[in-house]
Amino acid sequence: MTTVAAYAAPAAKAPLERTTIERRPVGEADVLIDIKFAGICHSDIHQAREGWGPAAFPMVPGHEIAGVVSEVGPGVTEFQVGDRVGVGCMVDSCRECDNCKDGLEQFCTGGGPVWTYNSTGKDGRPTLGGYAEKIVVDEKYVVRVPDGLSLDEAAPLLCAGITTYSPLKHWNAGPGKKVAVVGLGGLGHMGVKIAHALGAEVTVLSQSLRKKDDGLKLGADHYYATADPETFTSLKGTFDIILNTVSAPLDFPAYLSLLRRDGAMVNVGLPEEAVDIPLRSFFGGRRSISSSNIGGIQETQEMLDFCAAHGFGAEIELIAADRINEAYERVVASDVRYRFVIDTSTI
Amino acid sequence: MTTVAAYAAPAAKAPLERTTIERRPVGEADVLIDIKFAGICHSDIHQAREGWGPAAFPMVPGHEIAGVVSEVGPGVTEFQVGDRVGVGCMVDSCRECDNCKDGLEQFCTGGGPVWTYNSTGKDGRPTLGGYAEKIVVDEKYVVRVPDGLSLDEAAPLLCAGITTYSPLKHWNAGPGKKVAVVGLGGLGHMGVKIAHALGAEVTVLSQSLRKKDDGLKLGADHYYATADPETFTSLKGTFDIILNTVSAPLDFPAYLSLLRRDGAMVNVGLPEEAVDIPLRSFFGGRRSISSSNIGGIQETQEMLDFCAAHGFGAEIELIAADRINEAYERVVASDVRYRFVIDTSTI
Repeated sequence: MTTVAAYAAPAAKAPLERTTIERRPVGEADVLIDIKFAGICHSDIHQAREGWGPAAFPMVPGHEIAGVVSEVGPGVTEFQVGDRVGVGCMVDSCRECDNCKDGLEQFCTGGGPVWTYNSTGKDGRPTLGGYAEKIVVDEKYVVRVPDGLSLDEAAPLLCAGITTYSPLKHWNAGPGKKVAVVGLGGLGHMGVKIAHALGAEVTVLSQSLRKKDDGLKLGADHYYATADPETFTSLKGTFDIILNTVSAPLDFPAYLSLLRRDGAMVNVGLPEEAVDIPLRSFFGGRRSISSSNIGGIQETQEMLDFCAAHGFGAEIELIAADRINEAYERVVASDVRYRFVIDTSTI
Repeated sequence: MTTVAAYAAPAAKAPLERTTIERRPVGEADVLIDIKFAGICHSDIHQAREGWGPAAFPMVPGHEIAGVVSEVGPGVTEFQVGDRVGVGCMVDSCRECDNCKDGLEQFCTGGGPVWTYNSTGKDGRPTLGGYAEKIVVDEKYVVRVPDGLSLDEAAPLLCAGITTYSPLKHWNAGPGKKVAVVGLGGLGHMGVKIAHALGAEVTVLSQSLRKKDDGLKLGADHYYATADPETFTSLKGTFDIILNTVSAPLDFPAYLSLLRRDGAMVNVGLPEEAVDIPLRSFFGGRRSISSSNIGGIQETQEMLDFCAAHGFGAEIELIAADRINEAYERVVASDVRYRFVIDTSTI
């Protein structure tokens, strides 16, 4: 076992504080990663505050991990000491169910993926995430950060990047397609960058026009305020894909009315509150409503390579570890452009 | 103008009664059809009773029309006197919007489509449907009934056939796919026949096992009672496509749980009641919920050719016109195997 410094929530809704945790010995197929940067995802807050239901404490959040390999197990074939790597939301899965075999480990039906934190590893121990100095992960759940992507700007791609890339690819965003991204936060800003890089015509639907200049710089072609009812009149029947990154209740019928024939509204943020959608609101034009949840390991590598090839990472605010609690408050207040990343050397 | 005998509802919820109506003169591109058979669709009842909202009266329902061409306009190129033809839910559309150009006239955004009844034609007159001796229709909205399909068994295909064929094709029902058909009524029995003919593995989900023998004869591989909670446990995560033909409120979260990864629940029946679906119930596995509405004219022809090639029409109960009101009651009570068809010679 290795003792490493980390930031943990000792209990639900308690502030995070500095502590030490144990990492397992480096096993046959494991790599030990010196974590350099860890992104702060809104879902860290949902879980640390039990917004999505009961959670395990103490909790070390963090599933947007970028670092450098510092040790490898004897059976490791893909990585060497010194490699720049990332770890996202999963650190294991059954590897045998249809979904795992199809490279969609996030939908593992063989007991579910082992999530990077707030989950239980195959060794029966609670998993602890990336707000820490080091982590030990089976190499199959580790991806490579390509040259040209800095580790700090790469970290948020491990969740925010793949969460938006995967549905945009799956629902065929590309040339000739009109994509709306709802919300311009950590997920939304990556959605805009990726949809634009895929060649789609991109519209941001945000509550106000406050971040309009940013949105256009990130690659959006159009930017509308959803607080203005005229937005819903003028854009009726427009979009092939609506990527909803907002994990709060919305007027779903209004958004669904913006889809053109065969359009899909894909939700990647799950509100804490119960939200009901009238069946009637998606009748007409074969419009659909669906959800997407991160992406598989292979697709995560593909996404990193795609971002590197297009020369972008996330837009980040780098912070020291002692500002995590303040950052949480700012994320909840939508006051971040566009992702907080913890410099883990400050832990 | 031509005066023809018809059955009409004089007012909402009033019984249908024999009357006469006027058909327009045969225009340049029109065909006059001697109607031989007209199917009774549940949506006839929804509309005649204003279950879907205010309607125009007197109403002649009927959009499952099979007959023989008895006159053609001078500009008609596709049909001749004596041809066996069908007319479905639409008799016109704008012909210029993207959806019309794509052969999906049912989604016409240019003010249309003009429905076969309870709609307004381009001449400003109310449209009147197929419970009548004759009808005049622009040839572009007329399809050919292939040899080998009898007109009485073909009539219900014009709505029940295309309503199930179109989504099964669109969502790729075929070999290797597991399709559930919810409800074994007029739509459901066609869904089973078509999904089976497309090569899918077909399961009927019906309230009880009352029609199980029929379902298996129609081509279902499996048959489950939805009144049995065990059905929802044992079939969890099974289906690629759930075709819901029931226009009544269902426990949607329970049905959605039966979808496998990337599965789609497609609704073709719109309940009169408001139904809300929890957003949470389709999170996980990229499952989606959507709707479908009949099909385009070209696809309707394709469906008729498909049914003829596979040697089946609808399962029908042929009735005389004076039994229409009784038939309506039996449709509402789900007491029909599986479609009432009016012999219009009895009008």
